[in-house]
Amino acid sequence: MVKVLVVGYGTIGQRLADGVALQGDMELVGVVDAVMSLGLRALREKGMPYKLFAANQQSADALKEAGMVVSGLLEDVLKRVDIVLDATSAGVGAQNKKLYEKYGVKAIFQGGEKNDVADVFFHGYANYEKGIGANFLKLTSCNTTGLIRAVDCLDKKVGLEKVAITIVRRVADPGDYHRGLTNALQVDKAPTHQAVDLMTIMPHIDATGILVHTPVTHGHFITVLATPKKDISIEEVSAVFKEHDRIRMVRLDEGFLGNASLFKYARDLGKPRGDLYEIAIWEDTIVKSGRDIMFGIHIPQESVTIPETIDGIRAALKMDTNGAAGVKKTNQYLGLGTWKK
Amino acid sequence: MVKVLVVGYGTIGQRLADGVALQGDMELVGVVDAVMSLGLRALREKGMPYKLFAANQQSADALKEAGMVVSGLLEDVLKRVDIVLDATSAGVGAQNKKLYEKYGVKAIFQGGEKNDVADVFFHGYANYEKGIGANFLKLTSCNTTGLIRAVDCLDKKVGLEKVAITIVRRVADPGDYHRGLTNALQVDKAPTHQAVDLMTIMPHIDATGILVHTPVTHGHFITVLATPKKDISIEEVSAVFKEHDRIRMVRLDEGFLGNASLFKYARDLGKPRGDLYEIAIWEDTIVKSGRDIMFGIHIPQESVTIPETIDGIRAALKMDTNGAAGVKKTNQYLGLGTWKK
Amino acid sequence: MVKVLVVGYGTIGQRLADGVALQGDMELVGVVDAVMSLGLRALREKGMPYKLFAANQQSADALKEAGMVVSGLLEDVLKRVDIVLDATSAGVGAQNKKLYEKYGVKAIFQGGEKNDVADVFFHGYANYEKGIGANFLKLTSCNTTGLIRAVDCLDKKVGLEKVAITIVRRVADPGDYHRGLTNALQVDKAPTHQAVDLMTIMPHIDATGILVHTPVTHGHFITVLATPKKDISIEEVSAVFKEHDRIRMVRLDEGFLGNASLFKYARDLGKPRGDLYEIAIWEDTIVKSGRDIMFGIHIPQESVTIPETIDGIRAALKMDTNGAAGVKKTNQYLGLGTWKK
Amino acid sequence: MVKVLVVGYGTIGQRLADGVALQGDMELVGVVDAVMSLGLRALREKGMPYKLFAANQQSADALKEAGMVVSGLLEDVLKRVDIVLDATSAGVGAQNKKLYEKYGVKAIFQGGEKNDVADVFFHGYANYEKGIGANFLKLTSCNTTGLIRAVDCLDKKVGLEKVAITIVRRVADPGDYHRGLTNALQVDKAPTHQAVDLMTIMPHIDATGILVHTPVTHGHFITVLATPKKDISIEEVSAVFKEHDRIRMVRLDEGFLGNASLFKYARDLGKPRGDLYEIAIWEDTIVKSGRDIMFGIHIPQESVTIPETIDGIRAALKMDTNGAAGVKKTNQYLGLGTWKK
Repeated sequence: MVKVLVVGYGTIGQRLADGVALQGDMELVGVVDAVMSLGLRALREKGMPYKLFAANQQSADALKEAGMVVSGLLEDVLKRVDIVLDATSAGVGAQNKKLYEKYGVKAIFQGGEKNDVADVFFHGYANYEKGIGANFLKLTSCNTTGLIRAVDCLDKKVGLEKVAITIVRRVADPGDYHRGLTNALQVDKAPTHQAVDLMTIMPHIDATGILVHTPVTHGHFITVLATPKKDISIEEVSAVFKEHDRIRMVRLDEGFLGNASLFKYARDLGKPRGDLYEIAIWEDTIVKSGRDIMFGIHIPQESVTIPETIDGIRAALKMDTNGAAGVKKTNQYLGLGTWKK
Repeated sequence: MVKVLVVGYGTIGQRLADGVALQGDMELVGVVDAVMSLGLRALREKGMPYKLFAANQQSADALKEAGMVVSGLLEDVLKRVDIVLDATSAGVGAQNKKLYEKYGVKAIFQGGEKNDVADVFFHGYANYEKGIGANFLKLTSCNTTGLIRAVDCLDKKVGLEKVAITIVRRVADPGDYHRGLTNALQVDKAPTHQAVDLMTIMPHIDATGILVHTPVTHGHFITVLATPKKDISIEEVSAVFKEHDRIRMVRLDEGFLGNASLFKYARDLGKPRGDLYEIAIWEDTIVKSGRDIMFGIHIPQESVTIPETIDGIRAALKMDTNGAAGVKKTNQYLGLGTWKK
Repeated sequence: MVKVLVVGYGTIGQRLADGVALQGDMELVGVVDAVMSLGLRALREKGMPYKLFAANQQSADALKEAGMVVSGLLEDVLKRVDIVLDATSAGVGAQNKKLYEKYGVKAIFQGGEKNDVADVFFHGYANYEKGIGANFLKLTSCNTTGLIRAVDCLDKKVGLEKVAITIVRRVADPGDYHRGLTNALQVDKAPTHQAVDLMTIMPHIDATGILVHTPVTHGHFITVLATPKKDISIEEVSAVFKEHDRIRMVRLDEGFLGNASLFKYARDLGKPRGDLYEIAIWEDTIVKSGRDIMFGIHIPQESVTIPETIDGIRAALKMDTNGAAGVKKTNQYLGLGTWKK
Repeated sequence: MVKVLVVGYGTIGQRLADGVALQGDMELVGVVDAVMSLGLRALREKGMPYKLFAANQQSADALKEAGMVVSGLLEDVLKRVDIVLDATSAGVGAQNKKLYEKYGVKAIFQGGEKNDVADVFFHGYANYEKGIGANFLKLTSCNTTGLIRAVDCLDKKVGLEKVAITIVRRVADPGDYHRGLTNALQVDKAPTHQAVDLMTIMPHIDATGILVHTPVTHGHFITVLATPKKDISIEEVSAVFKEHDRIRMVRLDEGFLGNASLFKYARDLGKPRGDLYEIAIWEDTIVKSGRDIMFGIHIPQESVTIPETIDGIRAALKMDTNGAAGVKKTNQYLGLGTWKK
């Protein structure tokens, strides 16, 4: 059992902890945070299923003052873990890295950190092999993670030359009060970083794209225009997506009308926090223009990176030195793909 | 074990089924619906924890065609249940009532039906005794249910003369596509029905109010101005609310900034569907003007009526002929109040 | 002076009336409507700058009852106009057409009507010549009108083979209460009709696209991926857009952050109703992938079709038999392009 | 002709300039700003109807660099004006005050400044006489200004003892990107400052209230529960509101369904920027509970303080030493009340 520590118990950190706890071959040693939060309050109300460690002594005092049971400090627990999943706010991970190096602990950072924090910019499906044995990995961001799932499986099937994306970005998560837009779309400078990131992970594909922020919380929507090396039918594209354990094919006539339908569905499924790990692709959106293929993807921003981060543990700790085997194990423990049966 | 059937497997029906399934002294015989939906799809993907019955033969055929296992028809199953929780769309319950009468089955309708569908307009705390042994009950609507919880406990403590409410109504549930507002507040004709309904349940209190619709999905917000018969301090008001098993006192400095914080918190608690049964009252909003008390309530519209509906089962079937004992049992099975310890 | 009648005084009809009233060579005979509305109430408060005619006698009675001065019936006024701009609700225009035929009056319908209501599916820039002398024209819809402006000028410059669009559609207009989305993106079946319509107007271009509805009111956003016949630089693309009298090139660093910035800017300009006739293209969004050009367009849905509809009058009544001259005259009277100086 | 300078050309400053320019007995000397903005860009595109002065030399250089014609510096122009309307960001006004004192110029600050910046906390209707001859006035904030209009006229009619308000606050203005909420209500600590401010202006009334932020842009909504000293009928309340030149009585059946309807209506009226100076009260919301009166107010946040600020000029410069005469003159120049005829 490899020992995993989650540092940063926010939106992503909470979900990483839950995901690791489901892995039969991993032990979640605990979670680390610095200040009191609703997430920690909920952890306490649930009876502390995970041990809490404090970022430092000052944090420990503050957390105890706020009524939390603190099992120790980050530096203490670092001595007895194999890998850290760092889900702190952007920039903090780079600071923490010094500690991880001091204690010889591997770490996986989330998409908010700069690329140079890590040795490898990682995606479980697209470049698992690069992560094998690496000390520091950085996960692709939520949009890029989901996007690459879809692009990678098409690329493996038929070979892709070019990709142009439009990202309709949700601007906040449910419960966020520190950011938001009201009745406004906001345009970003192009090309959007997700297209650039895709090229970093898949350098043989030319990618560009435009991103627009929208005032919604239940998932991003991405349209992809992919230019394949050879012609492929809409049916073949559908079949490729349907086979994927981290992609759900959905249809409008089933009642999946948009991002909010998928959130509702996950709640109705009884998924913890109403989360889906899978991206969704609407079968109704797959169209062609000449040889080009176009389709629309739903990205559940809070949870989509969890499986690929766990893949990263498998790679970094050499639990599986074969990518296909590694992601398969992650999927089994997370129950991914079973819904297709 | 009393036998309970849920008719209508929409937003409320799904939650009624989940709530009844948690009661140690009730058996959920199954759920009934007429047409395929995401909720039924999720039920199927979960492996059919509840049996599904069809509203009629035509529905049965359609549901089977859509891939559902159908265990029979509504008329078949009505013969072997003690009570129906009717959570169909407004107006359908009145139609269904004829069937319930035909088979001599008691029923509890939700707030969308007209009052005359039932013998008793019911609230677990405010008028449990009126529901005892009744054949047909109608629950107060979500806002009225939550509002009465707060008003009733103050009334029992100190006696209330008057109540004036402002309802900031969420306009849709997460996942709704059939209704919604975009960048608009919508005003209703006053007095709002919740004030009128409150007077029906608590005829000794004079109530009025104004309702405005807002483009959000995670809960209503109600301000209450209550005129007590004798003076009561803010601390005493707080204490009354804190004792209540279906009220959570929250504070801004804990991170509960608004309706979305409570939804996030329920998700982080791991509550199924991210639901809370409790209303929340912000301690920061309790103020006085002269003797009048003012405060603000959060109403989780999807789930708030579940406990009081289950209270209704206890009353109608005379499982408990004492209101306090009845609601206590409901609370125990739903785990309400435990969070205060 | 050609005599123009506007039938239907809703969002589009009001703006058509205002636009026609600005044309030095057209006379706005009046506007026609059937039921009382805020728009008519405002017309009255402004002192009836336009004469009001009633759709029929029953409407006349109702409008008078509501306090409006009614100058006659549609059938009366049809005898003395040259052309009708029909901006009634979808489907009504097809009914009205019989009247227009009866009185030998030409008409231009808006995008909500079916194509077969008209002899020509019209866009001032892309196919003016087809409208010359035609009896019944149908305007492209708001998105298609704006999209074609941008696509057409690139096509004229360099020749386009293919176009793939993603439409981020605003779901309601400011003031709308009859439609709206709350915290949800809604996906449409692809290909979206705007791509199909573009091919109808510009049959030499292959087009496809996906549309997603977003809960905002101040304008659509479209990303266009265009495949030119020969290479063209970003600077050349910019130059083409900048020359266009109905396109505003904007930049993020100027403060144009999204659709709401353009609405604010139009209000600050003192434009009636805060309307812009121009589409906007963000210079920051123009990128290339290989030879393909990608860019993002803002579509002011309430007002964008007004200039092209007025072009249609010029074409249908043969006021200008040269497209370039026709659109130039429309632009002069509407003050379009002057802002570039 | 008194000489007026507007310092700060943002949302409020632009509207103050427009309002002053309409006063037949005032001269708008110019407007002052520090950094380039869309508002200044629009001023330039309109041909500089108002002269622009720069906050300082550095600002002057930056504004010229951005293409603006700058007519001088704030300190230059202060020598030749009688009064400044300071509409800078909160806190800047307090800094500017030193300059105003240095040059012996009176000033009126907006609601964002702290009360101690001014000698008088001012409202044109409620305490005009306190502003007469004062050197430094601070206007009530937008919500308080509109609220006091309604409370004051009832108070003058019948005498009020107590007021309890619920403010449903719009969270951003159209075009705002620096603030916003997405799918969330946000609760404030009670009592809300508007209730406290009301008591400062009208110390004989006891007031309290709760404020909740909502994700909309077209106006606040306030419910008021007022306890009169003696009974007054709903009809009498209506009559009082209808007589007021800065209040519009509206009805749901006229099509005024909420805040967005009023914005739409103002646009249709052709009002510059789609602004209304009037608050609106829905006749449908006026209800009673015992002697208490309850009603709902719409506050157009961008423009509502303009008339009372201009009243402040009249008071401070002793243009009218009678409040009723002063506000009447402001109303005439702004065209207020004419719509009732």
